Amino acid sequence: MRLLFLGDLVGRTGRTAAIEALPGLIEDNAIDFVIVNGENSARGFGITEEILRDVLDAGADVVTTGNHVWDQRETLVYIERQDRLLRPVNFPPGTPGRGAHLYTARNGARVLVINAMGRIYMDSLDDPFAAVEAALEACPLREVADAIVIDFHAEATSEKQAMGHFVDGRVSLVVGTHTHVPTADHQILPGGTAYMSDAGMCGDYDSVLGMDKEEPISRFLRKIPTARFAPAEGEATVCGVAVEIDDATGLATDVAPLRIGGRLAQVTPPFWPDGKR
Amino acid sequence: MRLLFLGDLVGRTGRTAAIEALPGLIEDNAIDFVIVNGENSARGFGITEEILRDVLDAGADVVTTGNHVWDQRETLVYIERQDRLLRPVNFPPGTPGRGAHLYTARNGARVLVINAMGRIYMDSLDDPFAAVEAALEACPLREVADAIVIDFHAEATSEKQAMGHFVDGRVSLVVGTHTHVPTADHQILPGGTAYMSDAGMCGDYDSVLGMDKEEPISRFLRKIPTARFAPAEGEATVCGVAVEIDDATGLATDVAPLRIGGRLAQVTPPFWPDGKR
Amino acid sequence: MRLLFLGDLVGRTGRTAAIEALPGLIEDNAIDFVIVNGENSARGFGITEEILRDVLDAGADVVTTGNHVWDQRETLVYIERQDRLLRPVNFPPGTPGRGAHLYTARNGARVLVINAMGRIYMDSLDDPFAAVEAALEACPLREVADAIVIDFHAEATSEKQAMGHFVDGRVSLVVGTHTHVPTADHQILPGGTAYMSDAGMCGDYDSVLGMDKEEPISRFLRKIPTARFAPAEGEATVCGVAVEIDDATGLATDVAPLRIGGRLAQVTPPFWPDGKR
Amino acid sequence: MRLLFLGDLVGRTGRTAAIEALPGLIEDNAIDFVIVNGENSARGFGITEEILRDVLDAGADVVTTGNHVWDQRETLVYIERQDRLLRPVNFPPGTPGRGAHLYTARNGARVLVINAMGRIYMDSLDDPFAAVEAALEACPLREVADAIVIDFHAEATSEKQAMGHFVDGRVSLVVGTHTHVPTADHQILPGGTAYMSDAGMCGDYDSVLGMDKEEPISRFLRKIPTARFAPAEGEATVCGVAVEIDDATGLATDVAPLRIGGRLAQVTPPFWPDGKR
Ligand SMILES: [Fe+2]
Ligand SMILES: [Fe+2]
Ligand SMILES: [Fe+2]
Ligand SMILES: [Fe+2]
Ligand SMILES: [Fe+2]
Ligand SMILES: [Fe+2]
Ligand SMILES: [Fe+2]
Ligand SMILES: [Fe+2]
Repeated sequence: MRLLFLGDLVGRTGRTAAIEALPGLIEDNAIDFVIVNGENSARGFGITEEILRDVLDAGADVVTTGNHVWDQRETLVYIERQDRLLRPVNFPPGTPGRGAHLYTARNGARVLVINAMGRIYMDSLDDPFAAVEAALEACPLREVADAIVIDFHAEATSEKQAMGHFVDGRVSLVVGTHTHVPTADHQILPGGTAYMSDAGMCGDYDSVLGMDKEEPISRFLRKIPTARFAPAEGEATVCGVAVEIDDATGLATDVAPLRIGGRLAQVTPPFWPDGKR
Repeated sequence: MRLLFLGDLVGRTGRTAAIEALPGLIEDNAIDFVIVNGENSARGFGITEEILRDVLDAGADVVTTGNHVWDQRETLVYIERQDRLLRPVNFPPGTPGRGAHLYTARNGARVLVINAMGRIYMDSLDDPFAAVEAALEACPLREVADAIVIDFHAEATSEKQAMGHFVDGRVSLVVGTHTHVPTADHQILPGGTAYMSDAGMCGDYDSVLGMDKEEPISRFLRKIPTARFAPAEGEATVCGVAVEIDDATGLATDVAPLRIGGRLAQVTPPFWPDGKR
Repeated sequence: MRLLFLGDLVGRTGRTAAIEALPGLIEDNAIDFVIVNGENSARGFGITEEILRDVLDAGADVVTTGNHVWDQRETLVYIERQDRLLRPVNFPPGTPGRGAHLYTARNGARVLVINAMGRIYMDSLDDPFAAVEAALEACPLREVADAIVIDFHAEATSEKQAMGHFVDGRVSLVVGTHTHVPTADHQILPGGTAYMSDAGMCGDYDSVLGMDKEEPISRFLRKIPTARFAPAEGEATVCGVAVEIDDATGLATDVAPLRIGGRLAQVTPPFWPDGKR
Repeated sequence: MRLLFLGDLVGRTGRTAAIEALPGLIEDNAIDFVIVNGENSARGFGITEEILRDVLDAGADVVTTGNHVWDQRETLVYIERQDRLLRPVNFPPGTPGRGAHLYTARNGARVLVINAMGRIYMDSLDDPFAAVEAALEACPLREVADAIVIDFHAEATSEKQAMGHFVDGRVSLVVGTHTHVPTADHQILPGGTAYMSDAGMCGDYDSVLGMDKEEPISRFLRKIPTARFAPAEGEATVCGVAVEIDDATGLATDVAPLRIGGRLAQVTPPFWPDGKR
């Protein structure tokens, strides 16, 4: 089974690049399942229902989020009817929407997607390890799910790596989001779980986190806010990670990054039909 | 001019891998200058004078550090006589050692190395932007220095990117350390400065930050310390970044990661004699 | 019903002052129930079983703790047989010891004591609000408990005040600990719950948090650790809060601070036999 | 010399209470100098020039601020012409306004007021200890200033106490602000400096930090913002600290809190004409 995950869409340039790239990527490479983190797709802050629909129409099966999930107020309402939009699973009980759900891939496989959020240097949510454990117990790999992906939206590399090891052998892929910078530590952990600390954003890399760089730099230097943050508008790099999953075990047999367009070094998974090293 | 930077050496496996790799890398590729971050080389915590000598003997021209610089108490003393060891430049006035210094490379070029530390999610030091500005004013590119490298030891990608843009066009390379995970966002910024958010550690990537994974995972799960942290002992990946610097401008003409050995995907700079894509 | 709570005992001077003061205070003022926070009683870090016994022998009915609870490793073991020692209730499931328990006071009243820990600027524990809610549901005021006290070990005044309002009318007293500084905001909230943001420590107030002031000041100035932290040894002020609880409602009818000995302005509850304004 | 300091004015109820109380307090007690922290006086966020004038007209000699100083954009402009408004002294060089200034009291004494901001759990500013040291060197007690007051706007009690000891014997008063809760640790330190960790706010104490309690409580429980923060509107307690300063030494001879109106226990300095214990 072939799966693609794209990191945080940032602003118009990031979401447009992802939306334009997805149909071709899916068709050319026979991708079975696509997950996209959309928490910054609406001018950098949250996601509207209209943007969600556009991303799903482009071929995403699931859209995950993170700390910015409620930046657009309408999300608190429409998330109840949009079961392809996930918010972090370790929000308090009673939070609108869902944090983990079982979907059916193009190849008929059942894919459990879990969206969890870290706590180191972030808001004080419920324990993401316990929340992930509960989601896995409810829907174990090979028993209920054919593949399991965790989008671990977190800041600290320690927490991300700990999550990877915690579920190693029990999920297909743990991929981090939130730092908006792709990491080069993609690997298959000893137990068979593919891991990458951060997928990186889909956005303009001549920026600070995908936002126009002037205001953030000014705040670091002067400690005075003088303008709102707005997304940078240069050409985006579509950043993500691709995984080949064994149909029998649900574990990863190959993992590699995808980076196309924009300023970053271009790379496509070598195990894809149009892959190149 | 050809420059190599290696990220945080973690424990015996990390420093041994780097020490064994450096002489061959330098000779085979005619590297003019080598910088290594050594803040975790002594069992994960700080650096002893003996280890410092070993790293310098292996071919490093400068050893940088970070928040762990004083973990070995002797460092407060011996740093005064070791001008090839840097500690963050934005420590308070009166701190032993130095945070920026001008060195001579194998090719005769004068290289200014600045070691600065971020403040987001870290200890409250003096302003790294102001400290870097002061160091650059004292020793400007093309006037005093032929090349300038900043090791920005920081947690947050926002602060690292802001630093990159802040000095773009005024230094040869800004490379981050501290997260112990290599990023894949190496690029030459619009003004000509090579940039990479984190070089990654030289250490065992079947770990949490290069440390044996059991105790950190246990602390995330149980919130109780039960043992000391100790470095993992599996084969290390030597992680770093290579830069080609224009002799006339001091700016970067090429930048690429280096990752050899251990679990991560292997890569050597394509512009090196023994490079491969 | 008359209840006394003493804040964090810090080191020998703090615990000795509390141990010497308690028997007289209890007898002279007919105090029915005494709670003491002991998390810093063993040289500033944690509590040994021997010190716990001394504090209980002096008249404490319950000893609460906080983030320093496990500083003495033996506590992980002996807490299982010491049901008068509480650790924060919002540690993960499976943590040794207990975080809430029902005790019988000298007057026969059943007193529920809950020890919870805040998350703002502190470690990432489970939700203290949810944990307190669960403890209250298991043992409601007037149905099971005649009085309920929450020691909310937290840093931020916002979180402490929010906890006070959250349980207002459902518990007898919410008192904060951890900052080691007594607050002067003791009041009875609109619903009848006595509240005080911090009880203050029992320790030497010519110090930094009860610890010898030289090393902490040096670290603020120089950003270099040069010695271990050790408790200050000057005369301690015994700091706490006294509450009068209505037997019928379990709510507070009066609340006032206690501060005796040492450097702080002396005050005893005006509603006590030996009280003075 | 008789000096009064009032803590953070929060919203209409807080600033009105302070403005109405000041003229009578000053006249009845022959107060020579009044400092008020005004950082939350404009609907909880910052201070407008109109409110500044009202507070000065009521008798304040200086208005200090903190992290909320720039919440009202106009402050960046008008602070340049208002030398009785201070912003934290450890903002970066080039910041509008001033952080320390010498004023003349009603009795002719020259009073240096320094407004500094802590860094623990707060934004990453320049070193407040170094900034205070520089301000004191420029204007030492007994040589240039007859009295010196530091408003240390900080979160952590450790940093506040360290500042107190750092300047002990060199200033008349160190008083903390920012937590919006008055502390009961007022004392004269060994060197003669009056100290109090926090003056407390002038605001409604049936609230969370002076703001209407519903929204903050909801955010702690649900982790979802659903409304803006707005000041609570109940009767405010005017909170502050009074100091008697020796004309010859500039050091404190007496220190006591002031709390009048609203929900907190009422107290006026016993050494004032209308003081009562
Ligand atoms: Fe994001
Ligand atoms: Fe995020
Ligand atoms: Fe570090
Ligand atoms: Fe490191
Ligand atoms: Fe404590
Ligand atoms: Fe504590
Ligand atoms: Fe404030
Ligand atoms: Fe503040």
